[in-house]
Amino acid sequence: MRSHAFDAFFKPKAVAFAGSIKPGKIGYEIIKSMKEGGYQGNIYPVNPAGGEVLGYRVFASISELTEDVELVVISLPLRAILDTIKQCGMKGIRAAVVISSGFSEVGNYQAENDLVTTARKWEVRIIGPNCAGLMNPWTNHFPSIEVRALPGHTAFITQSGALGGATLALAEERRFGFSKFVSYGNRCDVGDIELLSYLADDPQTGVIALYIEGVDKGREFLRAAHAASMKKPVVAIKSGRTQSGTRAASSHTGTLAGIDQIYEAAFRKTGIIRVEGIEEMFDLCQTFSQCLLPDGNRVAIVSNAGGPGILAADKAEKLGLDVAEPSPSFQKNLKPHLSPHASLKNPIDLTVESGYEEFRIALESALSEYDAAIVIYVATPYLDSNAIARGVIDAAKAHQKPIITNFMAGRIVKDAVRLLKEAGLVNLATGERCAFVLSKLTERKKLLGRIKFASID
Amino acid sequence: MRSHAFDAFFKPKAVAFAGSIKPGKIGYEIIKSMKEGGYQGNIYPVNPAGGEVLGYRVFASISELTEDVELVVISLPLRAILDTIKQCGMKGIRAAVVISSGFSEVGNYQAENDLVTTARKWEVRIIGPNCAGLMNPWTNHFPSIEVRALPGHTAFITQSGALGGATLALAEERRFGFSKFVSYGNRCDVGDIELLSYLADDPQTGVIALYIEGVDKGREFLRAAHAASMKKPVVAIKSGRTQSGTRAASSHTGTLAGIDQIYEAAFRKTGIIRVEGIEEMFDLCQTFSQCLLPDGNRVAIVSNAGGPGILAADKAEKLGLDVAEPSPSFQKNLKPHLSPHASLKNPIDLTVESGYEEFRIALESALSEYDAAIVIYVATPYLDSNAIARGVIDAAKAHQKPIITNFMAGRIVKDAVRLLKEAGLVNLATGERCAFVLSKLTERKKLLGRIKFASID
Repeated sequence: MRSHAFDAFFKPKAVAFAGSIKPGKIGYEIIKSMKEGGYQGNIYPVNPAGGEVLGYRVFASISELTEDVELVVISLPLRAILDTIKQCGMKGIRAAVVISSGFSEVGNYQAENDLVTTARKWEVRIIGPNCAGLMNPWTNHFPSIEVRALPGHTAFITQSGALGGATLALAEERRFGFSKFVSYGNRCDVGDIELLSYLADDPQTGVIALYIEGVDKGREFLRAAHAASMKKPVVAIKSGRTQSGTRAASSHTGTLAGIDQIYEAAFRKTGIIRVEGIEEMFDLCQTFSQCLLPDGNRVAIVSNAGGPGILAADKAEKLGLDVAEPSPSFQKNLKPHLSPHASLKNPIDLTVESGYEEFRIALESALSEYDAAIVIYVATPYLDSNAIARGVIDAAKAHQKPIITNFMAGRIVKDAVRLLKEAGLVNLATGERCAFVLSKLTERKKLLGRIKFASID
Repeated sequence: MRSHAFDAFFKPKAVAFAGSIKPGKIGYEIIKSMKEGGYQGNIYPVNPAGGEVLGYRVFASISELTEDVELVVISLPLRAILDTIKQCGMKGIRAAVVISSGFSEVGNYQAENDLVTTARKWEVRIIGPNCAGLMNPWTNHFPSIEVRALPGHTAFITQSGALGGATLALAEERRFGFSKFVSYGNRCDVGDIELLSYLADDPQTGVIALYIEGVDKGREFLRAAHAASMKKPVVAIKSGRTQSGTRAASSHTGTLAGIDQIYEAAFRKTGIIRVEGIEEMFDLCQTFSQCLLPDGNRVAIVSNAGGPGILAADKAEKLGLDVAEPSPSFQKNLKPHLSPHASLKNPIDLTVESGYEEFRIALESALSEYDAAIVIYVATPYLDSNAIARGVIDAAKAHQKPIITNFMAGRIVKDAVRLLKEAGLVNLATGERCAFVLSKLTERKKLLGRIKFASID
């Protein structure tokens, strides 16, 4: 693959850090995170004080740096930033992440204009200012103060650094990984539009997730989102839906949050899949990066538990999935293999008297008849949850169809959930969440059939 | 407090267990759970085989038991149950939990009728059949095969044993406790109506939660729910909302799931607070048992993070809370104490440059001006999260108003969240969830003002 200008941001040969090198200060903490994260290239702290920090020689200025530096991360006071950008330009460094704040987000438009003008003049591309940095966990590249992401297949682009940080911390707890993370802050130069286009061709990225408060260049954004969503699912949280939210969004990033209905319609047209919050985003990105799309909207719900099956059926139907009853032959063929108390309508309730064999046979049959399946298993401490997980895994192998599992709950299914994950299956916290993600897989399948003929101009 | 007939179920002096005593069988597993749970009364296994199990002498029949037995837990085959009920009656034991299945849930109405007739004749009250048992964690009384509950202030009554089991397993993970747990299965005798009335007067119960697929005796149920909800919040998950869900609910517990709109209206009239699923139920029960009700619907959102504050504001406004801008004097008085970049609209964004003092002063001011507050704190690894938790705790002490916190996320706020919990504050996973529970606290406050004049007949 030929190199892209943005590779300097995400895969730099070496990185310099211009900022304070005192412990507790952002500059120091970022260098520490790069080191702890195991970055393989050279790390060059830059500070007029010189000396040494965290085992690295501190360079007095950008101009003294060696030639391998491709990215400079800036956490300097406002007054020192323009000159640093100029030095980057003179040195041939084409990428800078500006962490520092105090620009348009606090009304200082002049400073931001000056930054843009200087950067253009010296041909330096900028991510920021007022941002939380970026990450490429696949190359242990962590120029950020946030919790370091695990490698995964979701690229996350966020307009809010804090929301980005919270997302990374939650993701760590859930063992959810990222292909790239970018907080672009005030978006004075690099923004969603170019990032969408870059990440749409990024081999590690399977799904692109966005947190947006407002867009500028609306038509260009939609064109980029449309192009990206033809290649990969694009999932977005768009905040500022209400009066107070809009007021806050305008105040927070200075962008016009706009009328929510306009976003809603534009998102639908371009194929952006809108979600309400971080938890839905995780569920959905995980599913998109691991599951096939279903050929239709007929879903079987296979469970060993009445109540949770019904809750999932309610949710599935509400979201437009077809929880159709199975065919008479399905019922006839399956009946001899199951507990006499099993219910062979849909949800298919295998009852608590079911193990490896019942789950395997029921799921195999269901996958022959339906487009997708949700498997809900409620453990009690005395059931062999691992055996049931194996039943699901063996049935899944025989079919190329999406299966979402909900093994409940906690400690007593921990090992079983690990088995499911190792087999590449997605396990979510409730059956309702399974129904939600499956409805979105179905929507995307429909979209891919339809969007080819749509125009967004 | 004078004793209630149901005390035999929930606080028996001694318990007998009629069923198989082989490891892996339900009878054995229940006795094991009682023992491991630390039950203080005597435990009497009953099986014609006699001998000893888990260190307890096995009695050959109910008639041989000593006089202290107040409850018998039955996991016998169908054919042996009626005689056991008769023996209970003859022995003066007035309460039996029938775990065994094979009754109306599989179409065997005759067996269930016989059970009811026998129980009436011998004056034995029955929970079950086809149920997952009950629990009273406050007396270490765990006649159930499910994960043992921690003591807490939520009573949970469930029509689905499996959903009950899943709830207990999820609760354990969340360290969420229960005052009582009852799975009533086929509800051949004791059901929601009497349990609601019993739990409404139970001193350990602060909130009553229900999982319902369908009710019988609709009017009586609503009257009991109304009476209970005047004393304590009653939260309900009602499944079977859609066609497939209703079909499954009818098949699962044999009850008529009914038209969802009728339930919706009836719930509203009687004060039952409806939730969508288990996670909402946990959030809400926890909040109801720990928080005061707000005097009005004006909520301040105090955060150190733009994005998450906006998402919470969107949700709050959508749910009918008033995220009003603060007064000019509020802004004027607070400004000198905060970072110059802080935004003093609502959400009040203290920015990342805020610690103990900023959070304490801002929250104190907000509580003087608003009816309630949501505090959102997004940590980065280098912030002192514990100090900020202390700021919130100190501000909370000065006011008798509901405060819901959302400290994010994972490992980096673990200690801070512990501090909040020790101080009696509720911390939820997202700001949106905080907004949801606060909207329900507000609804209940309104209801308590209104319901006195309502009639449900």
